[in-house]
Amino acid sequence: MKQLTLVDIEALAVGAWILGTGGGGSPYHALLNLRRLYAEGERVSLMDPDDLRDDDLVAVVSVMGAPLVILERTVDSRLIARAVTAMEEHLMRKFKAVMAVEIGGGNGMQSLLAAAHLKIPVVDADAMGRAYPEAQMTSFAVGDLAPFPLTSIDPRGNEVVIGRVASWKWMERVSRKVCTEFGSIAATCKAPRTGAEVKKWGIPRTTTKAIKLGHAVTQARQRHADPIEAILEAESGVRLFSGKVTEVERRTTEGFLRGRTVIDGLGNDRGGRIEIDFQNEWVVVWRDGRPVVSTPDLICVLDTESGEAIGTETIRYGQRTTLIALPASEVFLSPRGLEHVGPRAFGYDIDFKSVFRS
Amino acid sequence: MKQLTLVDIEALAVGAWILGTGGGGSPYHALLNLRRLYAEGERVSLMDPDDLRDDDLVAVVSVMGAPLVILERTVDSRLIARAVTAMEEHLMRKFKAVMAVEIGGGNGMQSLLAAAHLKIPVVDADAMGRAYPEAQMTSFAVGDLAPFPLTSIDPRGNEVVIGRVASWKWMERVSRKVCTEFGSIAATCKAPRTGAEVKKWGIPRTTTKAIKLGHAVTQARQRHADPIEAILEAESGVRLFSGKVTEVERRTTEGFLRGRTVIDGLGNDRGGRIEIDFQNEWVVVWRDGRPVVSTPDLICVLDTESGEAIGTETIRYGQRTTLIALPASEVFLSPRGLEHVGPRAFGYDIDFKSVFRS
Repeated sequence: MKQLTLVDIEALAVGAWILGTGGGGSPYHALLNLRRLYAEGERVSLMDPDDLRDDDLVAVVSVMGAPLVILERTVDSRLIARAVTAMEEHLMRKFKAVMAVEIGGGNGMQSLLAAAHLKIPVVDADAMGRAYPEAQMTSFAVGDLAPFPLTSIDPRGNEVVIGRVASWKWMERVSRKVCTEFGSIAATCKAPRTGAEVKKWGIPRTTTKAIKLGHAVTQARQRHADPIEAILEAESGVRLFSGKVTEVERRTTEGFLRGRTVIDGLGNDRGGRIEIDFQNEWVVVWRDGRPVVSTPDLICVLDTESGEAIGTETIRYGQRTTLIALPASEVFLSPRGLEHVGPRAFGYDIDFKSVFRS
Repeated sequence: MKQLTLVDIEALAVGAWILGTGGGGSPYHALLNLRRLYAEGERVSLMDPDDLRDDDLVAVVSVMGAPLVILERTVDSRLIARAVTAMEEHLMRKFKAVMAVEIGGGNGMQSLLAAAHLKIPVVDADAMGRAYPEAQMTSFAVGDLAPFPLTSIDPRGNEVVIGRVASWKWMERVSRKVCTEFGSIAATCKAPRTGAEVKKWGIPRTTTKAIKLGHAVTQARQRHADPIEAILEAESGVRLFSGKVTEVERRTTEGFLRGRTVIDGLGNDRGGRIEIDFQNEWVVVWRDGRPVVSTPDLICVLDTESGEAIGTETIRYGQRTTLIALPASEVFLSPRGLEHVGPRAFGYDIDFKSVFRS
C-alpha cells in the first residue's frame, strides 16, 4: 500500500490522458477535484492487486457517457462515490477497495475520487489498459466474468440498479439507454469483482504505469527534450504521422461521441493525409483508404510540441498533432479478445493488423 | 376475501378491455394463462382494499410497453410474478397482496397472474380506473406518493431496479427507455404501496366493477339485447357516434403505440366523420377539427354488434364501431388530476370539457 502524492496525481492526469486514446473523458475536472480533496487533507492509497485477498470485494467505477458532455457538465466528485455506496446497499456488502474500469482519461482518476470520499484504497489495475467506449470491451468480459449488477447514478437523484442481464452486450444496451436518458453522462459502479477475479483478469499496475508515463512527459518538458520521444521510450511506442488538424466532424449520438477528423501532414509527412474515425476513443486511422492502425493498438493523438494528449472532444482545427501507437494489453490480442475490441467489434469489416507485429 | 371463479375471470376480461379505452393491452393472452392456471387448480382471491392493514405492503404491477408488441410477443405468466419477487428481494420485505396499476385491458388481469403464482390475494383496486400510457398518470402520482422503486423484467433474464428517481416524470423517462430497449415490452412492479396509501389514493373496487361490466355485456348478448346499451346503463355512459373504420395509422415509437383512426358515420351518423388520436389509449376524438371528447373521460370504441372493446392495436379497416364515453374517476377531475392526465398532459393545447358536465 502506497500513499499517492499530489505530484503522482498530477502525473497520473497526464499519463492517463495519453492512455485514453482520445477517450475516457478529459481528466481535468477530476484533477481539480483531487487537488481540492488533497488540500482538505484527504489522501488516496494505491494497493497492489497481489495484496488483495481472494474474497475481497472490489468496486469497479467509471463515469459513462459521451466525452463532450462529460467535459461540459461538471459533476460533484461525490457522485462516483454514491455509485459505489448504492452498489454496497444493493449487495449488502462493503467494498475493500475501488478500481477504474479504464485507466484512460478522467476515468483513470474517478476511482481516486471515490476512494478519497469512501476512505478505502485504489487497486493498481484496470480492465482495459486504456479506454474503450462499451461495457463488453473489458478484460473481465473477455474472461467471461458476470456482467452484472451495475449501478448508474445521475446528479438529479436518479438511481438505477441493473440487477441481471442476459449478456455483456445486454449490459451495454440497457446501461447505455439509462445513461443516454440521464443526458449521456452517468456515474456507474460496474459488476463487483472479487480479489481473485482482479488478480486473474484485471490488467495489473496500470495506475503506476500511467503515473510513470506522466512523469516521463513532465520531466522531458523540464529538460526541454521532446516529450513525445519520452512517451515512445517509456511505452515502446511508434511515431506514425505529424500534421495539422484540418477537419473535425463530431456528433453526440446514442450516448457516444462519434465522428472523424482529418490531419494534413507537415514536415516529413507534408503532402500526406490521414483520417481518424472515433467512437469516444480513436478507433481506426486511414490513409489513402487503407487502415494504418486500429484498435486494440493504442492510437494516441498528441500535441506535437507539448506531448499532451488530445481527446476526441477537444481536438480542433489547426492543432499541430503527432499520431503515435502504443502496444495493447496481451488479453485483447487473442481471437477472443479481438472479438470484443477488434475493428469488427466497432463495425469495420477489416482484420486487425498490429503495427507492432508487422 | 372472495375467491374469483372462472366465470368472474371471463367477465373480467370483457369488462377490463372496455375500461382499457383502447389500451392496457389485449386481455386475451392473460385470459388464456388464467384458464390454464385454473385448470391446474390455482385460485385467485380478491381482497377489499378496506381489509388491508395500514402497514401491509402491496405490489403494483403491469406489463408496460406498446400494445402492438404485447399482442405479438407472448410472455410467460411467471414473468409478472418475477417482477414482484425481484421487488421483494430489493426491499427485503414480502408483499401481502398484489394490485393492478390499471384495471384496463390485459393489465387488469396481470395482477391475477402474479397473485396465482405467488399465492397471495389481489386487491380490488387500481390507480387509474381505466388504462393510461405513462407512469405519472396514476392516482398515486396525483397524490404525490413516492414514485420509486420500480423493477422491470424481460424474458431474456434482464432485470433492472430503478431505485430512486427525481420525480414521477423521471420514472416515466427512465423506465420507458429500459422498456424500449427490452423491445417495447417489460413486466414491471411499480412503487410498492402501503395499505394506508392504497386506501387513501387507490381507486377502489375497480376489479369488481370490471367483472360486473363484463357480466352485463355477456348477459345482454345471451338475451339478444344490445350489449352497448347494457354498458351505458351499467356505467352511466353516453353513446356518441357509430360508423365504419376507414383509416388507421399506427406506429410503434419510443415504447408507445401512437397513431390515429378515422371512422365514417353509418345509420343516424351517416355523412359524419370522426378522427381519434391515440397513444396506447384513445386520447382525443375530433369532429370537424373540434374536440368531441378527450381524456380523462373514458373513450371506448366498441364493436357495434357484440359490444366487444376494440384496442388501438386491433382496430382495422372496415370494422363497424360505436364510440361511447364513460365517466372518469373523480381523482382526475381536479386541476391537479388534469395536470397529470388532461389533454395538455398529452401535448394537446385544448381544455378538458367533460361530456358528462356540459
